[in-house]
Amino acid sequence: MTQRCEGVGLVERRYATWQEPLVLDSGARLAPVTLAYETYGELSPARDNAILLLHALSGDAHAAGRHRPSDPKPGWWDVMVGPGRPFDTERYFVICSNVIGGCQGSTGPSSVDPATGRPYGARFPVITIADMVRAQARLIDALGIETLLAVAGGSMGGFQALEWAIAYPRRVRGAILLATSARSSAQTVAWNAIGRRAIMSDPRWRGGDYYGDEPPIDGLAVARMIGHITYLSEPALEQKFGRAFQEGSRPGFTLGPEFAIESYLEYKGASFNARFDANSYLYITKAMDYWDLPAQYGSLEAALARARARFLLLSFTSDWLYPTAESRTIADALRRLDRSVEHIELESIAGHDAFLVDTEPQAPIIAEFLASLGLDTHRL
Amino acid sequence: MTQRCEGVGLVERRYATWQEPLVLDSGARLAPVTLAYETYGELSPARDNAILLLHALSGDAHAAGRHRPSDPKPGWWDVMVGPGRPFDTERYFVICSNVIGGCQGSTGPSSVDPATGRPYGARFPVITIADMVRAQARLIDALGIETLLAVAGGSMGGFQALEWAIAYPRRVRGAILLATSARSSAQTVAWNAIGRRAIMSDPRWRGGDYYGDEPPIDGLAVARMIGHITYLSEPALEQKFGRAFQEGSRPGFTLGPEFAIESYLEYKGASFNARFDANSYLYITKAMDYWDLPAQYGSLEAALARARARFLLLSFTSDWLYPTAESRTIADALRRLDRSVEHIELESIAGHDAFLVDTEPQAPIIAEFLASLGLDTHRL
Repeated sequence: MTQRCEGVGLVERRYATWQEPLVLDSGARLAPVTLAYETYGELSPARDNAILLLHALSGDAHAAGRHRPSDPKPGWWDVMVGPGRPFDTERYFVICSNVIGGCQGSTGPSSVDPATGRPYGARFPVITIADMVRAQARLIDALGIETLLAVAGGSMGGFQALEWAIAYPRRVRGAILLATSARSSAQTVAWNAIGRRAIMSDPRWRGGDYYGDEPPIDGLAVARMIGHITYLSEPALEQKFGRAFQEGSRPGFTLGPEFAIESYLEYKGASFNARFDANSYLYITKAMDYWDLPAQYGSLEAALARARARFLLLSFTSDWLYPTAESRTIADALRRLDRSVEHIELESIAGHDAFLVDTEPQAPIIAEFLASLGLDTHRL
Repeated sequence: MTQRCEGVGLVERRYATWQEPLVLDSGARLAPVTLAYETYGELSPARDNAILLLHALSGDAHAAGRHRPSDPKPGWWDVMVGPGRPFDTERYFVICSNVIGGCQGSTGPSSVDPATGRPYGARFPVITIADMVRAQARLIDALGIETLLAVAGGSMGGFQALEWAIAYPRRVRGAILLATSARSSAQTVAWNAIGRRAIMSDPRWRGGDYYGDEPPIDGLAVARMIGHITYLSEPALEQKFGRAFQEGSRPGFTLGPEFAIESYLEYKGASFNARFDANSYLYITKAMDYWDLPAQYGSLEAALARARARFLLLSFTSDWLYPTAESRTIADALRRLDRSVEHIELESIAGHDAFLVDTEPQAPIIAEFLASLGLDTHRL
């Protein structure tokens, strides 16, 4: 393992903008369209070493390195990206693209609607995972890349990776899917819906037109708190917080937060408000809720039959949001289609968060999978 | 099985009030104290056939029968209470008591504070499960009952049943605990805390002083929606709603509720608002969060060593809020203490709700347990 070596160092966020309207699944046309992205490493002369990383609900294009030396934290997948790391920037050209609908530099509800000169707010068109990927395909075109060596992502990033493999079968050699699913379950729809309900019933939401004014911080905090519990396992919560009080060791007999878990949730709610836009939360969770490959293609097999990539699926024992059964369903369907697929369930108590935090066992598996793609000759 | 026979018929809610202050765990003194309750069947001349039913978070004293012939639904445990039913009103005198802190006729935050002549609101003292049981003990005294044949309850009702058996060991012959726990886990605290956060950040909450004005309906709806997902299992949600749209079969590309599960949650939120007080939700969930027998007594064994009752524990395979492991912890501790305990895990996909909805397999087990108590001669 060489994870202790230097990472990618200082990086910068880039932008690509298209004036040509993007036709969305809803039929709406979005223009202009901007995507924020970052790249690490160099594109090979043969243009055959590009890997696209796809982020989850609250992620962004900043997967690795630091924007400024003083940044307290590097990008969200830093331990996996860099020289000698699984997404080895001495071998691969690694791209991470933000999604449309987001609030980290790509076109989303906080962007200015050219028709009105004001932020879109709730007039932004409702988008889908396929729309996100359609925009990313423009970016890959613009970078002069015909075929991606791999697409990789966890959770909603896995949705995009699947969509890439199915919508652009000849452009994806390998797909790495972590802690993900081919469809959003009734329960995940429910959690997202409650989060949206909290945001939209916060009076500061004002029908989505809160820009320049105080945003719906309470609604977004509640949505994020719900999310956090679903990202962690019950044993992890027990181990990390248990029933410890934030101060002292006895009940304070107040209605406010007293337990350490409550303070943690308050902190998570507040810090999310500092970096995320409530309207983006509405649009991105809605896109996740619509995610349903079996319904879209008639069956999961019909969807996956279009793909030509090799697949690596990783799932985690304590993930109850996207449990192993969801990955197994995909892997089983691929096997019935006689496709190349490896599914490994990794032991972890970290819950859904395991795909981001328990990276050590993932690293060699992903490195080996990528190396096998570089060597192989399977036709797309 | 004789569950198809007539139930208890028409019943009425009764009230008992004490002017003598109730000294609470917080040290606060509550007066006057009123408890709403109902009774079914007749107290035997020997006063040895009384059973106390204890309700869950959103329950009330109305366990069985109807208040008016036109009531669309009977009490919450009607299928279990009546002639020939497990809590057989031809043999037993069945009592169901509301909890203090509630909003169904017992003293709670919506009651008038005699010190101000206005509703308590958030000036109501923070209460505990032990406080609830302390008030109920007054009711049992007032009914002229020294020893209860049994106490029985699910979820928070199970907390009270445990507390009864431990705090009043010589007054409880049998304890029936359904889908419950000896302590609230970090995860259950988290869900409750997020619900309270939603209520208290609804501007209509107004620090708890909303009586006579519009209550915090959005906050309470969100709290209830969160609760409902935790009461159901993922497979039950999948079976009941799956990914069905409420109308049509295609995405509507709107930000509002579209899936059947979303409409269900909206309905549950609205109907809860029609019958429940948001402040009571705050106080009762706080009492649940404080519930921690091991911390209170030094260890679970130390707590249970005080009890003299026979125990019956029922848990349900798909209950992830109070999973079987919680019941097993209690049963194992009782066995180590050489106490009489029976723990049965019942198969169900209904999740935590199983204790209320999957009553058929419970009925003969409970009936037999009660019969064994009536016959036995174990000394309290």
